[in-house]
Amino acid sequence: MADDAGMRVMAEPLKAYCTKVFQRLDVPAEDARMVADNLVSADERGISSHGVARLRRYVKGLQGGVMLARPEVRIVHETPATALIDGGDGLGQPVSRRAMELAIEKAGKVGAGFVTVRNSNHYGIAGYYAMMALKHDMIGFSMTNAAVLVVPTFGRDAMLGTNPISVAAPAGEERPFVLDMATSTVPRGKLEVYDRMEKPLPLGWATDEKGEPTIDGTQVLDNFAKLAGGGLLPLGGAGELLGGHKGYGLALMVDILSGVLPGAGYANNIYLKDKDGRAQPANVGHFFGALRVDGFRPVDEFKATMDDLIRRLTATSKAVDRERIYIHGEKEYEIADDRRRNGVILHHKVVADLKAMAEEFGVGFDL
Amino acid sequence: MADDAGMRVMAEPLKAYCTKVFQRLDVPAEDARMVADNLVSADERGISSHGVARLRRYVKGLQGGVMLARPEVRIVHETPATALIDGGDGLGQPVSRRAMELAIEKAGKVGAGFVTVRNSNHYGIAGYYAMMALKHDMIGFSMTNAAVLVVPTFGRDAMLGTNPISVAAPAGEERPFVLDMATSTVPRGKLEVYDRMEKPLPLGWATDEKGEPTIDGTQVLDNFAKLAGGGLLPLGGAGELLGGHKGYGLALMVDILSGVLPGAGYANNIYLKDKDGRAQPANVGHFFGALRVDGFRPVDEFKATMDDLIRRLTATSKAVDRERIYIHGEKEYEIADDRRRNGVILHHKVVADLKAMAEEFGVGFDL
Repeated sequence: MADDAGMRVMAEPLKAYCTKVFQRLDVPAEDARMVADNLVSADERGISSHGVARLRRYVKGLQGGVMLARPEVRIVHETPATALIDGGDGLGQPVSRRAMELAIEKAGKVGAGFVTVRNSNHYGIAGYYAMMALKHDMIGFSMTNAAVLVVPTFGRDAMLGTNPISVAAPAGEERPFVLDMATSTVPRGKLEVYDRMEKPLPLGWATDEKGEPTIDGTQVLDNFAKLAGGGLLPLGGAGELLGGHKGYGLALMVDILSGVLPGAGYANNIYLKDKDGRAQPANVGHFFGALRVDGFRPVDEFKATMDDLIRRLTATSKAVDRERIYIHGEKEYEIADDRRRNGVILHHKVVADLKAMAEEFGVGFDL
Repeated sequence: MADDAGMRVMAEPLKAYCTKVFQRLDVPAEDARMVADNLVSADERGISSHGVARLRRYVKGLQGGVMLARPEVRIVHETPATALIDGGDGLGQPVSRRAMELAIEKAGKVGAGFVTVRNSNHYGIAGYYAMMALKHDMIGFSMTNAAVLVVPTFGRDAMLGTNPISVAAPAGEERPFVLDMATSTVPRGKLEVYDRMEKPLPLGWATDEKGEPTIDGTQVLDNFAKLAGGGLLPLGGAGELLGGHKGYGLALMVDILSGVLPGAGYANNIYLKDKDGRAQPANVGHFFGALRVDGFRPVDEFKATMDDLIRRLTATSKAVDRERIYIHGEKEYEIADDRRRNGVILHHKVVADLKAMAEEFGVGFDL
C-alpha cells in the first residue's frame, strides 16, 4: 500500500522519544509513557492514523492550553460496579488507562465494572483499552465519542463522530477476538488516501453538502474545511436500504454511553470554539467496561469454546477467489508480529515532523 | 405496505388468546402470559415478523418436544454483578424476562448487572428486554444468537445468525432511545417480502451459493431450503469496501456474548438436528445487561441531556427530499400509539392460522 511506504523505526526508541517530547511539555513521566505506549501500539498494529502521526496534534493541544499536562483527575462518583471519572482536560490516554484499570478492578471484585470519563481528549485506538481486560481473563469494552464528522440518516450536516466500538474477548490457543471499529463506513483518513490517489469514492462512504451520496472525496474534504455540510456516512451508507440507520444507531449509542452518561460533550456539542474561533477544551467522553468470564462460566471452558468458534469460522468454505476468512484482530496481531521484529513503518512526512519536533524540544532523534 | 394489509385485532384479547393456547400446551399461566405479551408487543411496535405470526412455530416446538413447557430453570452461577441462567430448553421469553429482571436487580444493588442464558429458544424482539430497564432509570442491553443465516466476510456458507443488538436509554420529555437491530443488513423476512413482490434484491443484502453478492432473492431462499450455501450479508454488505467486516464483527461479538459466554450454542453449532433430521433443543443463548444511570451521573441531568441530544439531531438540516430525522425507537413508539388505540394489524394468513389453532386447541377466537 502506498500508505505504508516509509521508514522502519523500532518501537522502543520511538516510545522513548515520544515520552521525552511529552515530558518537555510538562507531562509527568508516567503519563508521558502511557501516551507514548498507546501511540506506538497503534503503529505496531498497523493503525498508522492513530499512531505517532498524531503526536503533533497532541503537542499543539498542550501548547495551546486546551489539553492540560497536569490535569486534576478525580473520581466524581462510584458504586461497586460503576464509576465516573473527570479527566480535567488532560490527555486522553492516561485517564483512559486508569479508567479501564478501575473497571477491571471492579470486575475483579463484583463481576462487572463500567467506568465513564468526561472532560477528556482523543484517547487513541479504542482497542488498546478493551485489550487490557484480556490478561485478566475478562471481556473488555471501550468506546469514545469524537469530533463531528458523520451525518445522521436523512440528515445534511455531520452531527456525530466516527464513535468507535471495541470489544475484546480472550481465547485459548487461538488469538483473542478484538473488534475495533468506527461506526462510520470508513474513517476520514480513508477519504484523504483516496484524495491523494485521485480515486473516486465508492458510493456509501460520504455525502455532499446537500446530504446526497457522492463519489467526490475532494469536495467532501473541502466541505469539512469550510463547514459547508455533508460528511461521512454511518456504516450501512445513505438512507435505510442497506442499513445506514443501523450504523447511525450504533454511533448514537456510543454518544449516549460515552458522551451523555458521563456528562461529557455529545453530538455537535463537542470540540467547541469560542467567538474568536479559538479551540476550547474538547470535552471528549469515554466508556469502558470489563466482565469477568468466570462471573458466568469457568475460564478454561470459555476459552476452549472460543477456540472452537474461531476454528469453525476460519475453516468454513471461502467465497469465490477468496482464500481466507479473518477473525477480528487477527490482521493486526500478524502486523504487530512483523512490526515488533522489524520496526513500525512511518510515512516520510511523519518522520520529518518527528525530526522537527526533536529539534524544537531539544530531544534526541536517534531511531 | 402490502405487508401491513390485514385485519385489525385489539391487543388484549389477542394476548388472552395466545395465553390460552400456551396453557393448553401445558405452559404455566405466568409463563404463557409472558410469551403472549412479548409476541403481541412486537405486533404493537409494527415488528410483525416477531409477533403472533410466530405462534405456530412455538406451538410446533412445544408439540415436538424440543421446547419444554415446564423447564427446569436454574441459576448456575452468580456474582454480585453477573449471573448465568440455564433455561432448561423452555420457551425463550419467560427465562429472558427473569434474566433481565435479575440484571436490573443486580444493577440496583451494585450499579451494573449482566446475566447470560443458555439452553433457551427464540426470545422474540430483543428490544422488549432492553426496554425493561427504562422504568428503573437504567440503560438496558439485550442480545441473542439465532439460527444460522449470515455469511461471514469472504465466506461462502452461513455461519452466524442475524444476532440482534438492542440498547435502550431513558430520556426526559422526549421518548427513550431504543436501538433494536439485526447485525445483518436485513432479516430473512425482508427477502421473503421481495420474493412475493418479485422484486430484485439490492446488492448488499445476500450472497449466492458461491459467496457472491446476488439480486436473486428466490435463489437465496431456495438455497436456504436446500442448505446449498450462501445467505444474508452482514451490515455493510459483501467484502470490506463498505464495511461488511464490521457487521460480521458485530454478529460475532453477539455470538461470543450470548453464545460462548453462557455456554450455549454458537456459530453453526446451534439448532442442530439428529441423524434422522429431527430437530434437537436449539440451545439458543442470550445476553442481558442493565446499568444504573445514577451509578454515573444524576438521573435528571442525564435525562435533560438526552432530551437535548435528541432535539439537536431531529432539528438538524435534512437531506434533499427528506423531511425528518428519526431517533431509534421513535417509529415504533408512533406505530404502537396507533396499534394500542386501533388494534394491531395481522396478515390474513396469520389470522387464518390463529383460527386454525383456536379450533385445534379448543380455545375461543373472538377478537
